[in-house]
Amino acid sequence: MRQGTTVRDYIRTIVDFPHEGIMFRDVTTLFADPRGFRMAIDQMLHPYAGMRIDKVVGLEARGFILGGAIAHQLSVGFVPIRKKGKLPGTTISQDYKLEYGEAIVEIHDDAIAPGEKILLVDDLLATGGTAAAGIRLIERLGGEIVSCAFIIDLPELGGRKVLEDLGMDVHALCDFEGM
Amino acid sequence: MRQGTTVRDYIRTIVDFPHEGIMFRDVTTLFADPRGFRMAIDQMLHPYAGMRIDKVVGLEARGFILGGAIAHQLSVGFVPIRKKGKLPGTTISQDYKLEYGEAIVEIHDDAIAPGEKILLVDDLLATGGTAAAGIRLIERLGGEIVSCAFIIDLPELGGRKVLEDLGMDVHALCDFEGM
Repeated sequence: MRQGTTVRDYIRTIVDFPHEGIMFRDVTTLFADPRGFRMAIDQMLHPYAGMRIDKVVGLEARGFILGGAIAHQLSVGFVPIRKKGKLPGTTISQDYKLEYGEAIVEIHDDAIAPGEKILLVDDLLATGGTAAAGIRLIERLGGEIVSCAFIIDLPELGGRKVLEDLGMDVHALCDFEGM
Repeated sequence: MRQGTTVRDYIRTIVDFPHEGIMFRDVTTLFADPRGFRMAIDQMLHPYAGMRIDKVVGLEARGFILGGAIAHQLSVGFVPIRKKGKLPGTTISQDYKLEYGEAIVEIHDDAIAPGEKILLVDDLLATGGTAAAGIRLIERLGGEIVSCAFIIDLPELGGRKVLEDLGMDVHALCDFEGM
């Protein structure tokens, strides 16, 4: 494990994953380190001290690791947004564009009550496509999104602007250059 | 959300998911409830009070929600075991049998150091196939598994015996009848 003084120091870069030309920012080295993981969760929550949050929503799959920890820390419920076909109950779904083709995410239709204050979490903000689909699902159920919290922002991909244009408050712990 | 006094009360059953004849025990209603989720995480940890645990390993995907919360509670690192092709770094892999065909799970080969004390977590113990593959991965890296912690055990499917025959300590918060 790498020694680090900031969350960013614990993140490793894997070149050409999942395909050539991508610099994959790998948070598993952050999560595996006791100091790194604790710092990440604690720092993700700092902006929301004293604010009302009723539920944490996490995006599959790395958002589940963060979302579970954050929901437990806050003593609130956790709600997953999953890829199509994974949730067993009645769902609503939302499609969104990928680099090639499209994808669909789903949420249980009884997972959020109108007016509940929601914190949306994921590890990485890239183009913002998945997060925007998640926001739409939460809002269709009447949830009020307090903020969207990420570990990493990739500013060149423009996701922050996409979410801010949807009226979102956006926090990330660190930036990385490139795709 | 259902009112409950035990973790079991918050779990709902979905009939015929993912296919006919299956009574799917759905923990998302447990996770979405603030009292249910907090009770589940706290109770999963009760057997290990005072014991040394260096890392929590969670099985994709619901084990990530639990594992993230438990690792944060313990201030230790979290390590994911994922389906084939999802982890970006160098991995070791393990195949195991499913009802039809087989599946492969992977772990980063540097995620666990020899001698580290590991708690393995997932939501459901059914046949024990996925957990046994996870145990094998952890042991191949030299990890020493302290225990395997689940929310639900399905005793008719025999998973507990499979894991105990591998020398494992096994804890689950509740049982359900049927498949």
